[in-house]
Amino acid sequence: MAQLVLPHEANVHGSVLGGTVMHWIDLAAAVTANRHCRRPVVTAAIDEMSFLAPINVGQLALISARITLVDKSSMEIRVEVGSEDLLTGEQRHTSTAYVTFVAIDPVTSRPAPVPPLILEADDEKAGHARAIERRRQRLARRAESTTAGR
Amino acid sequence: MAQLVLPHEANVHGSVLGGTVMHWIDLAAAVTANRHCRRPVVTAAIDEMSFLAPINVGQLALISARITLVDKSSMEIRVEVGSEDLLTGEQRHTSTAYVTFVAIDPVTSRPAPVPPLILEADDEKAGHARAIERRRQRLARRAESTTAGR
Amino acid sequence: MAQLVLPHEANVHGSVLGGTVMHWIDLAAAVTANRHCRRPVVTAAIDEMSFLAPINVGQLALISARITLVDKSSMEIRVEVGSEDLLTGEQRHTSTAYVTFVAIDPVTSRPAPVPPLILEADDEKAGHARAIERRRQRLARRAESTTAGR
Amino acid sequence: MAQLVLPHEANVHGSVLGGTVMHWIDLAAAVTANRHCRRPVVTAAIDEMSFLAPINVGQLALISARITLVDKSSMEIRVEVGSEDLLTGEQRHTSTAYVTFVAIDPVTSRPAPVPPLILEADDEKAGHARAIERRRQRLARRAESTTAGR
Amino acid sequence: MAQLVLPHEANVHGSVLGGTVMHWIDLAAAVTANRHCRRPVVTAAIDEMSFLAPINVGQLALISARITLVDKSSMEIRVEVGSEDLLTGEQRHTSTAYVTFVAIDPVTSRPAPVPPLILEADDEKAGHARAIERRRQRLARRAESTTAGR
Amino acid sequence: MAQLVLPHEANVHGSVLGGTVMHWIDLAAAVTANRHCRRPVVTAAIDEMSFLAPINVGQLALISARITLVDKSSMEIRVEVGSEDLLTGEQRHTSTAYVTFVAIDPVTSRPAPVPPLILEADDEKAGHARAIERRRQRLARRAESTTAGR
Repeated sequence: MAQLVLPHEANVHGSVLGGTVMHWIDLAAAVTANRHCRRPVVTAAIDEMSFLAPINVGQLALISARITLVDKSSMEIRVEVGSEDLLTGEQRHTSTAYVTFVAIDPVTSRPAPVPPLILEADDEKAGHARAIERRRQRLARRAESTTAGR
Repeated sequence: MAQLVLPHEANVHGSVLGGTVMHWIDLAAAVTANRHCRRPVVTAAIDEMSFLAPINVGQLALISARITLVDKSSMEIRVEVGSEDLLTGEQRHTSTAYVTFVAIDPVTSRPAPVPPLILEADDEKAGHARAIERRRQRLARRAESTTAGR
Repeated sequence: MAQLVLPHEANVHGSVLGGTVMHWIDLAAAVTANRHCRRPVVTAAIDEMSFLAPINVGQLALISARITLVDKSSMEIRVEVGSEDLLTGEQRHTSTAYVTFVAIDPVTSRPAPVPPLILEADDEKAGHARAIERRRQRLARRAESTTAGR
Repeated sequence: MAQLVLPHEANVHGSVLGGTVMHWIDLAAAVTANRHCRRPVVTAAIDEMSFLAPINVGQLALISARITLVDKSSMEIRVEVGSEDLLTGEQRHTSTAYVTFVAIDPVTSRPAPVPPLILEADDEKAGHARAIERRRQRLARRAESTTAGR
Repeated sequence: MAQLVLPHEANVHGSVLGGTVMHWIDLAAAVTANRHCRRPVVTAAIDEMSFLAPINVGQLALISARITLVDKSSMEIRVEVGSEDLLTGEQRHTSTAYVTFVAIDPVTSRPAPVPPLILEADDEKAGHARAIERRRQRLARRAESTTAGR
Repeated sequence: MAQLVLPHEANVHGSVLGGTVMHWIDLAAAVTANRHCRRPVVTAAIDEMSFLAPINVGQLALISARITLVDKSSMEIRVEVGSEDLLTGEQRHTSTAYVTFVAIDPVTSRPAPVPPLILEADDEKAGHARAIERRRQRLARRAESTTAGR
């Protein structure tokens, strides 16, 4: 997925708004989750999303998404965003995000089961182990923030 | 900050897109950061963002943002999103997010110092302690993901 | 209600379009009318709307709305718009508008009764008296323009 | 000027938002003022704007604008909006608005003089007399609302 | 149909995007087709569309459309686009396009017959003869590209 | 390039507007032309664009673009559009377009030379021969429409 950054998406610094990049990340992750489970999906959480460098007007945003964890009805998707300067060809990595989607049964509107993730390459397996650790930490943080109030 | 959910912001389920809520959260947090430091700011990271319930077309989204941590040139903002059904008046909490912004010097485009956060109420102090812990965990996660590759 | 003015909302002078401010005023007034009557509402008329100063790109638009008159199924809402320069904190009053909404029965699509307005403070009562006078003048103007043709 | 009402411009009733119609009226009036004075213009005030009937998704909005009063640097424009059902050809009058624009000197950003209005037909002269009366009432209302507070 | 070019429609050269002009052409042609047949229509093909000169931000785009050929359920529409500089009044021709629409039966979603085109003026007849020749060439090109693969 | 079709891009039939597909085709072709010549480019013409099947809300639009002809400063790009039903995975071919872009010198704003196209595979050579024939016909049609008037 590629997006040309048009002037109307810029902030006052001439680079794309953080919120617009978040929107692209959400759409790319939704499509990836959709293709894995072939069911309607809704965004459940973002665990991490970094903005390392701006993407300027006239540059191309390159967005790639890969599924990293499946757990019952939820899927974690890693999304990488990069920029390409169309006049020089120079590419930079600008964002990494981990977004969790939940599959929904179209009739009951309740969470629906998702096919398991088949891991083949070694790096996929290592990535999966880290995804499990992220999920453990996320659940721990949520339990904590619920007991502690805000 | 309040946003009426118009039909053109809906997904195919008739509720507002996750990416649109992210966009509102980013803008509300940017304004709060701006008002604290009176300098240009850019989105640096999202640590957590949860989507607990959908906001439907015709409902009102209520967005409130508060600064929870200041560290040199970065500010962490907590954003709470709720929905209000305009026909019944019923309100629900739908999202909590922690977004980090960095203040930018308008001339050099480099990070610029930010005034410290003055904490008065006891719950502000407790919130601040939890923000410091979140920041510690975030930096740990990043260090780890850098050494481990992806 | 607050709106950060993004570049894509600007006219060629670098300030927000009159039509965009009108759109914000309409939405803020609609929400206020909705909350009063808890029914669907439609815009019926604008009596006055002034644009005293421009709101520039990168400034914050602050919009507040209050109900000033109720008559059977119609509600007059006063909307005030101001700007805040996010780098200096300076605020200015930019627009005042009086917008009339009509409550609609969702089944018959015909005008539906609206609860009366309870006035407590003295300035609310004085504001209400002026609203009644505005309404009288408006109906007179309309009667006149109908008989006179255009 | 004609606008096809697309689904993304609809409110929850399936008809176009009041604020979107206001936006079209503002643009049509701005172009008419622009063509009269061949200078940059800004919206100064709306005196009256009525919404008599909804324009539904899939219908065509027909917008026509005519200059009705010139006074030093300000121009009053009357805008008429109608709807056309594309399947039946039926047309309805839906809105009338009076919008005042001010011509701006591009260098000083201050109000700039505007060429006088040449009235030829009898109905133009009658329309002009009514425009002068509207302007007198508007200035009276403003003087009053300034002395009375709000 | 007239469109004021707002900054958010510009590309990085300060002129309106080709894709935005295409969108306006499509809407103007759809309305013209709709008015001829009073049925729902869908875009079937574009035969030619030229972009001779840019339309800049702050200029007015003037779009006119005329039906040039009817064949069973399809209609060919010629769309002319020009620009007007609002400060000087200078007009230029910027695009010509030939777009083909098909009328659709709202119940069966299949092509539906369209009333014939009545030609009166001599230039209409000459235009019609050229339209028939364009259609012949188009069908020939399609047949060829189907047999030749790509 | 992939685009999820959101409800706000739909026409009244629940499928994406022809003009929106044209906009995506223009952007995809512009990026491809940009990457070939590493210069600013502007849309010069569309020769053919077909819409064979609708793309519905909630489906994914898949857009691929390839350069087929280079001549001095102009590049012809073929764009293919397909749809994917996210719930079933079924894919369909929906549009083919040939769009011509011209490279622009950023200083003089005049056409600038473009690197030649290197053809390797046999099907690329066959495609190139057909592109030359399309260009010959296009120039013939234009010469004709200029001499014949319209």
